[in-house]
Amino acid sequence: MASTNSNPHTNDFQHVAFLVVDMINDFSFKDGDQLYKHTLPVAKNIANLKKRAKKLDIPVLYVNDNYGRWQSDFPGIVNEMRRTERGSKIIDLIEPDDDDYFVLKPQYSAFYMTPLELLLDYLNVKSLIIAGIAGNMCVHFTANDAYMRHYNLYIPSDCTASNSKFENEQALHLMEQVLKAETIVSTDLDLKKI
Amino acid sequence: MASTNSNPHTNDFQHVAFLVVDMINDFSFKDGDQLYKHTLPVAKNIANLKKRAKKLDIPVLYVNDNYGRWQSDFPGIVNEMRRTERGSKIIDLIEPDDDDYFVLKPQYSAFYMTPLELLLDYLNVKSLIIAGIAGNMCVHFTANDAYMRHYNLYIPSDCTASNSKFENEQALHLMEQVLKAETIVSTDLDLKKI
Amino acid sequence: MASTNSNPHTNDFQHVAFLVVDMINDFSFKDGDQLYKHTLPVAKNIANLKKRAKKLDIPVLYVNDNYGRWQSDFPGIVNEMRRTERGSKIIDLIEPDDDDYFVLKPQYSAFYMTPLELLLDYLNVKSLIIAGIAGNMCVHFTANDAYMRHYNLYIPSDCTASNSKFENEQALHLMEQVLKAETIVSTDLDLKKI
Amino acid sequence: MASTNSNPHTNDFQHVAFLVVDMINDFSFKDGDQLYKHTLPVAKNIANLKKRAKKLDIPVLYVNDNYGRWQSDFPGIVNEMRRTERGSKIIDLIEPDDDDYFVLKPQYSAFYMTPLELLLDYLNVKSLIIAGIAGNMCVHFTANDAYMRHYNLYIPSDCTASNSKFENEQALHLMEQVLKAETIVSTDLDLKKI
Repeated sequence: MASTNSNPHTNDFQHVAFLVVDMINDFSFKDGDQLYKHTLPVAKNIANLKKRAKKLDIPVLYVNDNYGRWQSDFPGIVNEMRRTERGSKIIDLIEPDDDDYFVLKPQYSAFYMTPLELLLDYLNVKSLIIAGIAGNMCVHFTANDAYMRHYNLYIPSDCTASNSKFENEQALHLMEQVLKAETIVSTDLDLKKI
Repeated sequence: MASTNSNPHTNDFQHVAFLVVDMINDFSFKDGDQLYKHTLPVAKNIANLKKRAKKLDIPVLYVNDNYGRWQSDFPGIVNEMRRTERGSKIIDLIEPDDDDYFVLKPQYSAFYMTPLELLLDYLNVKSLIIAGIAGNMCVHFTANDAYMRHYNLYIPSDCTASNSKFENEQALHLMEQVLKAETIVSTDLDLKKI
Repeated sequence: MASTNSNPHTNDFQHVAFLVVDMINDFSFKDGDQLYKHTLPVAKNIANLKKRAKKLDIPVLYVNDNYGRWQSDFPGIVNEMRRTERGSKIIDLIEPDDDDYFVLKPQYSAFYMTPLELLLDYLNVKSLIIAGIAGNMCVHFTANDAYMRHYNLYIPSDCTASNSKFENEQALHLMEQVLKAETIVSTDLDLKKI
Repeated sequence: MASTNSNPHTNDFQHVAFLVVDMINDFSFKDGDQLYKHTLPVAKNIANLKKRAKKLDIPVLYVNDNYGRWQSDFPGIVNEMRRTERGSKIIDLIEPDDDDYFVLKPQYSAFYMTPLELLLDYLNVKSLIIAGIAGNMCVHFTANDAYMRHYNLYIPSDCTASNSKFENEQALHLMEQVLKAETIVSTDLDLKKI
């Protein structure tokens, strides 16, 4: 279990973290069908990128909606979502590991009313790779807040999904233009050079 | 499991919450011996006050240090603390219930970098009963932040503990003088009139 | 001078505020030429909307970049910008009045590290009309943060400008789609029905 | 005028700032008589310490209540307070200079809903000297928030005042014990060694 007393991630070269946004999900909301359809292939890309990140000892942070469950129980939310067909299909692909970090968020941005910024400071992070859903909602809100806090942003174009391809591409384009985010596909992202 | 969609606590008369601060604890820190000695009798008082609060449907919120474990896993922290002798003795008395709320905090004040304020807004809370440890540290920091946010404060004198009686009484006196907190003993507190 | 002790804006029907974003400006930055060209006609629309708002006693808040001047001196910044040709042309149109409110912001969003939310609470505001520049930067960032805080949003399409028409329309479209903002032209906005 | 583009205070050795809390004041509140009586001698000590700080190029930040005037007009507030007899006596002693920094605060803590933390980051500050009034209110609240943010604290005992000597000494004692603040008299404070 990660603790502030024995941070495994604070070597001098460590400055990047991988955020996985709202992928622990049962898609039981309006347009959930559509979002799920676009999310499934993306989950595989996120899984591959996560594997590469962990090999380089890049910390992985699951930042996820608390779905109005105020019990600070991320494992409980994972279990609950896994009981649904869609939730389990996604979780099978991007299963959280014991040495990952988990931050529950009550709103769209992962920085709003959460300790995320403290955790990133403690991990000495200056650059963020952001993946997850929805590209034009929680990913975009989180990226905006990260930009105001001066993080360098990497948002691989094949690792986010939205209700439609158009909306996702529009969000990616905006994050590239406005937030100076790097948005190449994950397989072209050289994690050693971030 | 409480959810924003089916809040059991939002009748019109609901405006008070009971905060239990840092009582999920193994006291494995400097002066932990002293603090534990003062906390054990206080735990019984908190347990009694909690029973009375729940009969009136007053929401109970455990706000607790995350001890540098960034897994958003309150149940896991309860289990870990329960494995210690001191932790289990306290938890046996003030065991969290399934319909309680849990907020993990990374610092002294329960409002700093947590969603506590959002949860209190959602529960329509205007007044706080604060209990727990340490009276002159996390309770005091939390009470200060609550005062700036205009909550009415009730801090029963027999429901907080510090490393020494003197420090606890000094903190209670300050919270009474500076923060206008009510600090009578819990048995004299009329929960229906808050 | 407005003060919390004699708030002229707290009648029961008061629930809307008019935010004017970053219009106190000298456009002395990259692409400032382009932004200025699009801003000048918009300033006239904002001026007209402000007149209508003030007749209905709707509070007007200028929220403006502090330009790295940490003197908390909004009047000084107005004077400094007025000394430039572009700044004076805009300020002549949307001159702040003595009974307007002023909030200096250090970043894109007007909510980030400012007391704006406190001021809006004090004014009992639930809905925001947002105007100003740039539509796809500070207006968008501010609207996002307002949406997370549950304000109803009105962002008249003729009262924001960006470096290009395309970028401005794209931002307006996104704020309409994602943030449920009303984006009709200001002359069609019925201020009595907000 | 200080700007982020030409920060005069960012040499590598710069890591301390001097906060002057709520000294721009007319004392027109309950117990203002008492507080004024204790503040006048303290103002002289603050003035001397400020002189020494400026010789070493230590940035001086006036953090001051906005008194419910939401105009972001620190110079206006200075002028208004100066028009009162008590305000002018104090301001004559601790007159803000053009190259000082000013942060208006809406509540007790200088960190709550203000950009103070951003400004301190920009100035590369790790240690704070805090002076001003009231020692057991705004100074204490500000010091608590500074402690949670890991600043080293220096709170010279002859540079704060409260309504009574007892309350001020109690606050100093607490800040020394709980926040590990250095509280020696200002004349014994070696600014070169902070």
